[in-house]
Amino acid sequence: MSSALLEQLIDALRVLPGVGQKSAQRMAYHLLERERAGGQRLAAALSEAIEKIGHCVRCRDFSESEVCPTCASAARDAHLLCAVESPADRLAIEQATGYRGLYFVLQGRLSPLDGIGPRELGLDSLVARLAEGEVQELIIATNPTVEGEATAHYLAQLARQHAVKPSRLAHGVPLGGELEYVDRGTLSHAFGSRTEV
Amino acid sequence: MSSALLEQLIDALRVLPGVGQKSAQRMAYHLLERERAGGQRLAAALSEAIEKIGHCVRCRDFSESEVCPTCASAARDAHLLCAVESPADRLAIEQATGYRGLYFVLQGRLSPLDGIGPRELGLDSLVARLAEGEVQELIIATNPTVEGEATAHYLAQLARQHAVKPSRLAHGVPLGGELEYVDRGTLSHAFGSRTEV
Ligand SMILES: [Zn+2]
Ligand SMILES: [Zn+2]
Repeated sequence: MSSALLEQLIDALRVLPGVGQKSAQRMAYHLLERERAGGQRLAAALSEAIEKIGHCVRCRDFSESEVCPTCASAARDAHLLCAVESPADRLAIEQATGYRGLYFVLQGRLSPLDGIGPRELGLDSLVARLAEGEVQELIIATNPTVEGEATAHYLAQLARQHAVKPSRLAHGVPLGGELEYVDRGTLSHAFGSRTEV
Repeated sequence: MSSALLEQLIDALRVLPGVGQKSAQRMAYHLLERERAGGQRLAAALSEAIEKIGHCVRCRDFSESEVCPTCASAARDAHLLCAVESPADRLAIEQATGYRGLYFVLQGRLSPLDGIGPRELGLDSLVARLAEGEVQELIIATNPTVEGEATAHYLAQLARQHAVKPSRLAHGVPLGGELEYVDRGTLSHAFGSRTEV
């Protein structure tokens, strides 16, 4: 390599998910050849985000303020609370649906073998929230994996203990999906859960 | 989005080649969730690289010093000079072949319609170099594209004018292909089979 700083930049770029040596080289050259201003903006934005973004004390989503804009908004329906595993899941629901309630971001899922229990998922603060009495429905949007289902089951129990209605996203054949290519478990579930039309 | 700084980071990440909105989101969440230290290292490396990396006055490759380590090295054979279009091409040759000569990085190719002529490629300094009398062979490793071939033809003429032997990488490099993406074996073979032009 012709420059130690360039080598250092290429190494550092590999922290990005899915970026190996070859893409890191391509990115470094691209930035130095054609995007120096954009690269400086990226360096500043990255540094500032890492320094200032923490977690909202209400919903545990990423936030640079103590309470995030969603939790602070009077326009959201505080009777609905949607529990998701990650900020990315929260964003997917926010972008895809017309949901106007609030969120609770678990930042993980129950996984006793990895030492992730109710405390790590902030469930004490979720319980306090359910006990406040404002939430009427807890929409459980954990992922349909074994651990996600176990987490969903646990959350549903918590909700019932506080007289909050738990609900779960419907499982079924994806829109536009072909039956032939849907996995057996999903197809079997969708068949069993058929509804009258 | 739950945070303006997060939104700003996602926007800034899109300066990277091949990174759209979805990958930028994934990268931002990954860094904030799992790689804050690595992200800070990336921000620092990027900022430092952009600030301090310029071009070697001898070979025009990226360099943080006035003369790059390769040009400054007594271990390289100063009778051989290899002209490439970009720093990425130089790196590909350096990594794939046992070449021990020096390089000249054009930082482009002749493209009159885009206003890229001999001056933009630093050919005045290449001519001065050839006139010094030390270079015996100019290995022309421009890309096998129309513009790369035109550039090669021009460089071969310059070499002959200074009694320097011009050579060209052997075919084996696929037509229309970019050196940067050629596999090492092919590139190494083509380099070894270069022919006088
Ligand atoms: Zn919040
Ligand atoms: Zn140099």
